Amino acid sequence: MSAGPVGETWETVSWVGDSASGFVRLIDQTRLPTEFVRIDCRDVATVWEAIRSLRVRGAPAIGIAAAFGAVLGGQGMVGGDSDALRKGLRDASEQLRTSRPTAVNLFWALDRIDRVADSVELPADQLLDRVLEEAQAIADEDKAMCRAIGRFGAELLPSGHNVLTHCNAGGLATADYGTALAVIFAAHEQGKSVHVFADETRPLLQGSRLTAWELQRRGVPVTLICDNMAAQVMKEGKVQMVVVGADRIAANGDTANKIGTYGVAVLAKAHGIPFYVAAPSSTFDLSLPDGSAIPIEQRDPAEITAGFGRVTAPEGIAVYNPAFDVTPAALIAGIMTERGVIQPVNAASIAATLGTAGVPH
Amino acid sequence: MSAGPVGETWETVSWVGDSASGFVRLIDQTRLPTEFVRIDCRDVATVWEAIRSLRVRGAPAIGIAAAFGAVLGGQGMVGGDSDALRKGLRDASEQLRTSRPTAVNLFWALDRIDRVADSVELPADQLLDRVLEEAQAIADEDKAMCRAIGRFGAELLPSGHNVLTHCNAGGLATADYGTALAVIFAAHEQGKSVHVFADETRPLLQGSRLTAWELQRRGVPVTLICDNMAAQVMKEGKVQMVVVGADRIAANGDTANKIGTYGVAVLAKAHGIPFYVAAPSSTFDLSLPDGSAIPIEQRDPAEITAGFGRVTAPEGIAVYNPAFDVTPAALIAGIMTERGVIQPVNAASIAATLGTAGVPH
Repeated sequence: MSAGPVGETWETVSWVGDSASGFVRLIDQTRLPTEFVRIDCRDVATVWEAIRSLRVRGAPAIGIAAAFGAVLGGQGMVGGDSDALRKGLRDASEQLRTSRPTAVNLFWALDRIDRVADSVELPADQLLDRVLEEAQAIADEDKAMCRAIGRFGAELLPSGHNVLTHCNAGGLATADYGTALAVIFAAHEQGKSVHVFADETRPLLQGSRLTAWELQRRGVPVTLICDNMAAQVMKEGKVQMVVVGADRIAANGDTANKIGTYGVAVLAKAHGIPFYVAAPSSTFDLSLPDGSAIPIEQRDPAEITAGFGRVTAPEGIAVYNPAFDVTPAALIAGIMTERGVIQPVNAASIAATLGTAGVPH
Repeated sequence: MSAGPVGETWETVSWVGDSASGFVRLIDQTRLPTEFVRIDCRDVATVWEAIRSLRVRGAPAIGIAAAFGAVLGGQGMVGGDSDALRKGLRDASEQLRTSRPTAVNLFWALDRIDRVADSVELPADQLLDRVLEEAQAIADEDKAMCRAIGRFGAELLPSGHNVLTHCNAGGLATADYGTALAVIFAAHEQGKSVHVFADETRPLLQGSRLTAWELQRRGVPVTLICDNMAAQVMKEGKVQMVVVGADRIAANGDTANKIGTYGVAVLAKAHGIPFYVAAPSSTFDLSLPDGSAIPIEQRDPAEITAGFGRVTAPEGIAVYNPAFDVTPAALIAGIMTERGVIQPVNAASIAATLGTAGVPH
């Protein structure tokens, strides 16, 4: 076994202490699976860097980290008037929005923080308490949503099925328990036999570093493969379902997720394997009619050319490194949310489940 | 730019000196692209290890290395009788056959060496000369075949097309010039505009380490991507043709090649992009009616869990690491050989091009 606690829960991201002097504590996911290290963020810049550098990643976890991070922007201003505090919170929120462009939960969570900061009339110290309560509520709601996603999703997963997943949509991507992995954890806890094939997920290997680590810790059988082996595993009949997470879902169900997800969806279709997305309602962006308008983050070429301690490509080579791709709704059998499974996936079924006014952005 | 000669040719594998005291010289491809190192193999075991460890790889190059390697097994016996020499050659051939199971060129080349050793009546020293001539002929014929593959293949590649390739089927996989990359080199030399997307090809990154290196050296524009980005690049309309090499092709056209090739073929089909295989006739194994009987080498899990200087998966994790997959003939638009392009791909068209007795195994 590798670094970190076995058989216990851990907080992916949490707030430690009171609003005026506390801090954000998070697992540095870039150090896993060989080292289990937590870092304490005491200013906004440190939270920004942690999100940007993927120390904390996964759409729901990014939202939670950003919400807690905004509180840090208000510290030091609780002795002054409420407007000064509001400016500190607003500056923090604006800064944190620039950390990563694709995950909509980041904007959704900061919108909630902004709304409280702007609308609640309280003295500065009490207002900061109230903002921290909102951030904590986002984290607590996320935990409850993940459990509900797991319950709904597990109903679709019979015992004996093998599931393929891509990237990490587990407890490390959320407050706890995960989205795609919640479905597997829930089925496993119900006593079903579940075996997972985890794509390693180049370039940053969230599948091998994080998903394999989480599943191993919870005692779920898992086999690690390279991304380019998924087709062969499907062809051999070893996979009966695909479940992945999401970073942003448009109103028609088009889903942005980690690069490689679209290819897995095409392969699943070609092999007659149902492809599911698991995500909380905060991942929907109903302001976008379809996936074409979702911004796709481009990342550093060095992630590909010198990923893990060694230069593995010629100097000066051109690189294309999109962090995400968009899977069309037509390839998605269903979206597992905390309000139930949306299937078939289209604008009408999504609106019916979420309510058009349910998810403001 | 990285290590190695720019703008010059190099010998992937060659024989240096006379038959009685010479040796096999090959580029250690595991050191590319950061170091350009040649190793001199003076005994059979060193050649075996070089093939096994992928210091020399690519189906045609493996065959050439093995043929030269067999000569080493006869050295030290040229002063004795021919039967002792034959035993030395035979032992070497049998040992080298165990190095890698999938590439049929290995067995094809050693069959040629065995046939000369068994059938030619000469004194020992002259017989070893004759065996070396046969090995050299295999290398020379391979060069000519690669040029012919390039000429035939380039006829199908219009100027302005972008080509996606997987793994390395270039000069480093052959005596010179390559198979899949020969098509690109030929088109480039004809003045056509060609741009290549190179899959990095996990786990051993032959695409980023070798293909990108070769293309860069020959001045062909190349963009490196992770394997899981191929689908997105296709979806964006950036690729008009896929060309890959082959390790073994069955009588019906089913093709074994580097793991991930099958997935690329499925994705190409889904995007309406023609998928070609480029290979010399020595890669066909007409003794196999289809791809189901091609042995697939399984390799060390550490290639995936600790690939490039850092452990990137939890200790004790299960891994599935097939080195190859089989692409069904139905997904292959054509096979580019030194005798012309076989299309459509089926048993009849293959037999018509190769002749049923043309490729003994």
